[in-house]
Amino acid sequence: MSDTALVIFTPSGKRGRFPVGTPVLTAARQLGVDLDSVCGGRGICSKCQVMPGYGEFSKHGVNVAADALSAWNAVEERYKSKRGLIEGRRLGCQATIQGDVVIDVPPESQVHKQVVRKRAEAREIVMSPAVRLFYVEVEEPDMHEPSGDLERLSKALETQWELAGAYAGLSVLATLQPLLRRGEWKVTCAVHQDSASARPRILKVWPGFHEGPVLGLAVDLGSTTIAGHLCDLASGEVVASSGLMNPQIRFGEDLMSRVSYSMMNTGGAAEMTRAVREGMNRLIGEIAAEANATTDDILDAVVVCNPVMHHLFLGIDPYELGQAPFALATSDAVTLSSRGLDLTLHPEASVYLLPCIAGHVGADAAAVTLSEAPEKSEELVLVVDVGTNAEIQLGDRQGGVLACSSPTGPAFEGAQISAGQRAAPGAIERVEIDAATKVPRYKVIGSDLWSDEDGFETAIATTGVTGICGSGIIEMVAEMRMAGILDQSGLIGSPEQTGSDRCFLDGRTYSYLVREAGEDGRGITVTNRDIREIQMAKAALYSGARLLMDKRGVDRVQRIVLAGAFGAHISPKHAMVLGMIPDCPLDKVSSAGNAAGTGARIALLNREARTEIEATVRDIQKIETAIEPRFQEHFVNASAIPNAVDSFPHLEQIVSLPHVSFNTGEKTDAEGGGRRRRRRG
Amino acid sequence: MSDTALVIFTPSGKRGRFPVGTPVLTAARQLGVDLDSVCGGRGICSKCQVMPGYGEFSKHGVNVAADALSAWNAVEERYKSKRGLIEGRRLGCQATIQGDVVIDVPPESQVHKQVVRKRAEAREIVMSPAVRLFYVEVEEPDMHEPSGDLERLSKALETQWELAGAYAGLSVLATLQPLLRRGEWKVTCAVHQDSASARPRILKVWPGFHEGPVLGLAVDLGSTTIAGHLCDLASGEVVASSGLMNPQIRFGEDLMSRVSYSMMNTGGAAEMTRAVREGMNRLIGEIAAEANATTDDILDAVVVCNPVMHHLFLGIDPYELGQAPFALATSDAVTLSSRGLDLTLHPEASVYLLPCIAGHVGADAAAVTLSEAPEKSEELVLVVDVGTNAEIQLGDRQGGVLACSSPTGPAFEGAQISAGQRAAPGAIERVEIDAATKVPRYKVIGSDLWSDEDGFETAIATTGVTGICGSGIIEMVAEMRMAGILDQSGLIGSPEQTGSDRCFLDGRTYSYLVREAGEDGRGITVTNRDIREIQMAKAALYSGARLLMDKRGVDRVQRIVLAGAFGAHISPKHAMVLGMIPDCPLDKVSSAGNAAGTGARIALLNREARTEIEATVRDIQKIETAIEPRFQEHFVNASAIPNAVDSFPHLEQIVSLPHVSFNTGEKTDAEGGGRRRRRRG
Repeated sequence: MSDTALVIFTPSGKRGRFPVGTPVLTAARQLGVDLDSVCGGRGICSKCQVMPGYGEFSKHGVNVAADALSAWNAVEERYKSKRGLIEGRRLGCQATIQGDVVIDVPPESQVHKQVVRKRAEAREIVMSPAVRLFYVEVEEPDMHEPSGDLERLSKALETQWELAGAYAGLSVLATLQPLLRRGEWKVTCAVHQDSASARPRILKVWPGFHEGPVLGLAVDLGSTTIAGHLCDLASGEVVASSGLMNPQIRFGEDLMSRVSYSMMNTGGAAEMTRAVREGMNRLIGEIAAEANATTDDILDAVVVCNPVMHHLFLGIDPYELGQAPFALATSDAVTLSSRGLDLTLHPEASVYLLPCIAGHVGADAAAVTLSEAPEKSEELVLVVDVGTNAEIQLGDRQGGVLACSSPTGPAFEGAQISAGQRAAPGAIERVEIDAATKVPRYKVIGSDLWSDEDGFETAIATTGVTGICGSGIIEMVAEMRMAGILDQSGLIGSPEQTGSDRCFLDGRTYSYLVREAGEDGRGITVTNRDIREIQMAKAALYSGARLLMDKRGVDRVQRIVLAGAFGAHISPKHAMVLGMIPDCPLDKVSSAGNAAGTGARIALLNREARTEIEATVRDIQKIETAIEPRFQEHFVNASAIPNAVDSFPHLEQIVSLPHVSFNTGEKTDAEGGGRRRRRRG
Repeated sequence: MSDTALVIFTPSGKRGRFPVGTPVLTAARQLGVDLDSVCGGRGICSKCQVMPGYGEFSKHGVNVAADALSAWNAVEERYKSKRGLIEGRRLGCQATIQGDVVIDVPPESQVHKQVVRKRAEAREIVMSPAVRLFYVEVEEPDMHEPSGDLERLSKALETQWELAGAYAGLSVLATLQPLLRRGEWKVTCAVHQDSASARPRILKVWPGFHEGPVLGLAVDLGSTTIAGHLCDLASGEVVASSGLMNPQIRFGEDLMSRVSYSMMNTGGAAEMTRAVREGMNRLIGEIAAEANATTDDILDAVVVCNPVMHHLFLGIDPYELGQAPFALATSDAVTLSSRGLDLTLHPEASVYLLPCIAGHVGADAAAVTLSEAPEKSEELVLVVDVGTNAEIQLGDRQGGVLACSSPTGPAFEGAQISAGQRAAPGAIERVEIDAATKVPRYKVIGSDLWSDEDGFETAIATTGVTGICGSGIIEMVAEMRMAGILDQSGLIGSPEQTGSDRCFLDGRTYSYLVREAGEDGRGITVTNRDIREIQMAKAALYSGARLLMDKRGVDRVQRIVLAGAFGAHISPKHAMVLGMIPDCPLDKVSSAGNAAGTGARIALLNREARTEIEATVRDIQKIETAIEPRFQEHFVNASAIPNAVDSFPHLEQIVSLPHVSFNTGEKTDAEGGGRRRRRRG
C-alpha cells in the first residue's frame, strides 16, 4: 500500500489522491463532493453516511480491497446500535482512507439532493434551503481577550463552517448565554442565509447537537383558500399539508368585492389584513399540529398570492389595484419578519414573498413561472393558471416570456352558472352526451360510477347530484356542442332543431335538461345564460392567450400547461372544443396541478431559485389586456364555439363538430370560416 | 464675456471653469463642493444659499463683476418675501454663472458642516447623519411598464440622489400610495443609511416638500440617571435636553445589586428590562414635548451605557456579568429597530448601541473614547470616567489605547460616606481648611458664597447644609491632609496631635467636625471610616491607571482628562493631593464633562464615527484588573495620601504636604519615600 490512495466518489465521479488515513468526509470536502454534515465531522449527526463500493474495480478501473477503508469503529458501532445504519454504510467522518476506493454518496447524504417531482417535464428541485443547521464548538470566554458570547459563536461559524459575519436578533441574544453554558460550549444553530454571499443570521440555538427537524412553510394564499405545505428543510419532504377557507371570504367572494369593501368601509383594509393573518395563523397552528411539531419549529416561510391578497396580507390598502393604472405599492420580492406580519412562526423566521409581475399578475403567477419555467422551455409553451382571473404566460428559452392576466370571471369556478357549484361531493365533473339520443351520462365527485351504470343512484344517495363544478361545465358545454345541441354561436337548439325534448323553452331561449328533478325537487339544467357565461369566460381566456401569441408573432404553441386546481381536472379535448385554449397536439396539453404552490415550495427549498425568479420576473414582458385594442377584437371573435379566430387541426383529427346554426334554423357549411380567413389574411 | 467662466468656491478653495449659464449648485456638485440641497435644485428648500463675493478680486485674483451671476429671479424673490434671505445671499440652484466669480458657501449651507464644541482639545463633529431628507419627483405608474410605487420611488432616489437600492418597511408601504398621490408624485423621504455603501432604507415619506425637522436622540443610559439630547439631524443643534432617574433604581442602587436582583427573582431581569424601557419612553416623551415635536419625528437614536444596563436594555439577563469571566452576551455594536426595543420613537427608527469594550468596560466607555479620541492624541493621555466603576483609558496615536475598569465603589458619588450625598442643593462642594486654625470654609451647591462670608447662612436658609457631595469629599480629604489633620496613612489626628478640638474621639478613631449641628440637629463631620472609604476608592482608581501605565511601560502621563459629571466638578489639585490620579502638570488636567453623552451625540450626528469607533474598540488592548496581580500590589500601596507608589513633582511645586504620622504621634521626615524608592528600583 502506497502513502496515498485514489478515491473516486460516485455519482459525481470526482476523484483525487489522498494520504492514507484521510477521513472520507475530509476527502469529499476537498474535492467539493456534496456530502452533508451538520456536526462538522464529529461522529454525531450521521449525515455523512457513505457506501464504499467494494468490488467496483471493473466499473471504475479500481481494485477495491476489503480493507480500503479503516475498520468499523466504536463511534460507528454506537451510532448503529442506537439509531441503526443500513448494511454496508459507513460514517464518512469516521472511516479513513487506507487504499484505493470507490465511495458512493447516497442521495440522502447530499446537502444539495434532488427532491423528487412526479411529472417528467417538471423542473428539478435541488435542496439549497435558506435555513440550515450547523453544529459548532465555541471558544469559552477569556478575561484576557474579552469578547461577547455571540462574537465567539459567530467566529466558530466562520472557522468551522465558513459562514462569515453571522449575527443574531434580540430573541437569540436573550437566551444565548445559558444555552452555550448548558451545551458546554457546543451548540447547534439554525442559520438563515438568503444567498451564499448574504450575511448569515442566527435564528435559533440549541444546546449540544440538535438533529432537527427544521421546518419551512410554503403557502399559496388564495382569495378563496389558503393552502400550506410544511417541509423538512433538510430532506425537502412535505411533512404536512393543510388548507382552509380564507376568512376574508366574509368580506366578499371575489377580489374586486374585497377592494370595494375597503373603499366603502373605513378601516376595512385593516380588518381584512387582520382576517387573513388570523387565517394564516390558524393554518400554521393546524399544519404544525399535523406534523407533531410546534409553530416554533417553523423557521422559514414563502408566501405566494395574487396582488390584492399580497397587499392585504402586508397591510396595504388595495385601493389602487381596483382602478387603472393598477399600481402596486411594491412589486419586488420582499423578505419580512414573521413578527412584523404578526405570524405565529418562530419569532426570528423570515417570510419571503415572490415578486409580483404586474398589477393583475401576482406573486402566485411568478410562482407558476418558477414551477413551470417557461423561460427554460425548448418548446414554445403556453402556461395558463385558471381562476377568477386567468394568468397567462407564453414563452420559451429563445424568446423569453410574455405574461398577462385575463378577467375570466368566476364562471370556471362554477359561480354565475345556474347549476354551478364548487368542486365538492355531488358535483358533476365528467359528462358525455350521446350525439344520436342527446342523452347525457355523467360522473359526480365522490363516486366512480357513470350515471347510467348500475348502482349509481345508490352510490350518490347521500350526496345527491347537487350541481356542476367548473371542469364539469366545460365538458358539458363542449359535449353539448359535439352532440349538436349547441351551435357555434352558443345557442341551444329547440326540441325541433335538436330532435330532443331535453331541450325546452325556458323564457326566451332554450335550456338543456341534464337530470330531472328527483324527490328533493332539484333538477339540473343548462340554460342559454349559462352558455353565455362560459362563452365570456373562455373568450377572455382565449383572447389573453391569443394576444400573447400576437405579441410573440406566432399562430401556434407547441405545448400548453394548465395550472391550478381547475387546470388539474380539465379535459384538454373539451377545452379545445370550447375554444378556450389555442390549438395544440392534445398529448402536449398537460396539467401542472397547483403550480403556484409548487413554486412556493421551490422558493422555500432552494434559495437560489429566489434570486432566479426575481431576475426572470424582471425580464418578463408584461402585457396589460385592458389597454390592448387587439384584446377586445380577439374577445369579440372568440365567443364562438369553438372560437372563430383559430382553426383546430389537431382537434379536428379527433372530433368532428356538427355544422348547426340555431339562429336561422338552417345548417351552414362552414363555421365562421370566412371570418377566420379574414383575420388571417 | 467668454463662453466659460472661472468659479472659485470658498472656504474650500475648489475652482473650475463652467459654461456661462451653469447654475451655481450644479457647478458646486461637479467640483465636489459641500453645498446642501434637499429639493435637488428645484428652488424649494433654500438649503443651497450662497454668498457671491463681489470685489473679491484682490484676494483671489479674480475681478468679480457685479453681473457675474444671473439677475435675482422670481423664485428667489418669492422665497425671500415668504421666508426671508440674508442680504447678499443667493439660491445656488437659481443663480447661474455669467462671469468669473468667487462664491462663499456659508457654514449652514454645508451638508457636512462642523458642529461647534467649546473645548479646544475636543474633536470636531462633522455633520454626516445616518438619516437625511431627500425630495424627489417620482414617475407615475404606467400600465405598459408595470412596476410598484416603491420601486419607482426607489428609482427616483437613485437617479436624483445617487441612492441605489432603497427599500422600505411595512409601515412605509402601508401609506406610500396615498402619500405619493397626495403629493402629486412629489414627496420628501427620510432615508436611513448607515454608511455610504449601505443599502438605503426609507423611513418616512411626506407628500410634497417637507422641511423637517428630522430629529435624532442621543442617550446616556446610566445606572442612576438617563440623560438624553434631542438633536436636529440637519443642523446638529441640540434642540432639547432632558434627564430622569433610571426607574431601575428601585431594584438596587448599584449595578451589582441589580444583577443580584435578577439572580434572586425569577423574571427579575425582564422586570428590569421593562422598567428601563419605560424610563426611556418617558424620556422620549418629555424631550419631544420640550422640543415641541412628536416622538414620531425622532428618526434615529444612539444609546450608550455600561454593560449591565446594555444587557438589561436589550432584554438580556446580566447574570454572566456578575461573575468571572464577565462574559458579555454580545460585545459588537448593534443596530436594532425601535419597535424591537418597545421604544416610542418613530416605528421605523433605528437604535444604534456602541460596542462594549469588555465585560466591565461598556458602550459608555466606548463613547468616551469616541469623544476624547485618545487614539488620536499626540500626547500620552489618561482618560478617566469616574462613577461607581472608573473606566480608565490610556493611549496616544503612536502606541494605541489600553483600557480597564476599576471598582471604585460609590464613595465618589457620596455613598457610604457618613455625611455623603448626591450633588444637590445644600451639598458641600468646595472646601478650604486653614492650616493654622484647622477651621474649614466651604461652599454649598445653590449658593455662591463661602461659609465664612456675610449672608451665607441666609443664602442657605432654605436648603440648609445637608451633606457633602462627591467632589466636596475629595476636596475635604485633600484639605484635611494639607492642613495636617490627616496623616499619610489616612488617620485623623487627635486634638492633641492636630492642636484642634474640631478633631474629636468618635469610637476608636477620631472624627473631624465640619459644621456644628444647627437647630435641625444635623451636624457634618468626617469620620475616619469616611477617610477609609475614600482611600479605597481612590486607590482603586489610581491602581487602574497605574496598571495601564505599567502595561504601556511609562511612569508619567502627559495629559489627564476627567470625564463624567463627577470629573466635571473635581479639583485637579485636590485629586492629585489625594493621589487618586498620577502626577501631571495641573494645567494638563482637564474636564470633558459628560464625554459619554458627547460620544453618543457624535455617533448620532456622524455615521462614519460609528464605523470608526467599532474599529477603535477592536484595537483597544483590554486589561482585566481582577486577574492582574500588579493591580492588587498597586492597590495596597495606593491607599496612602498621597499614594506611596508615585512622586508628584508637579504637585510639589504648588503644595507642600505636612509630614505627620498620627499612628505613633511622631513626625516622619519623608512620606513613604523608602517604599517608593523600593518600587522603582
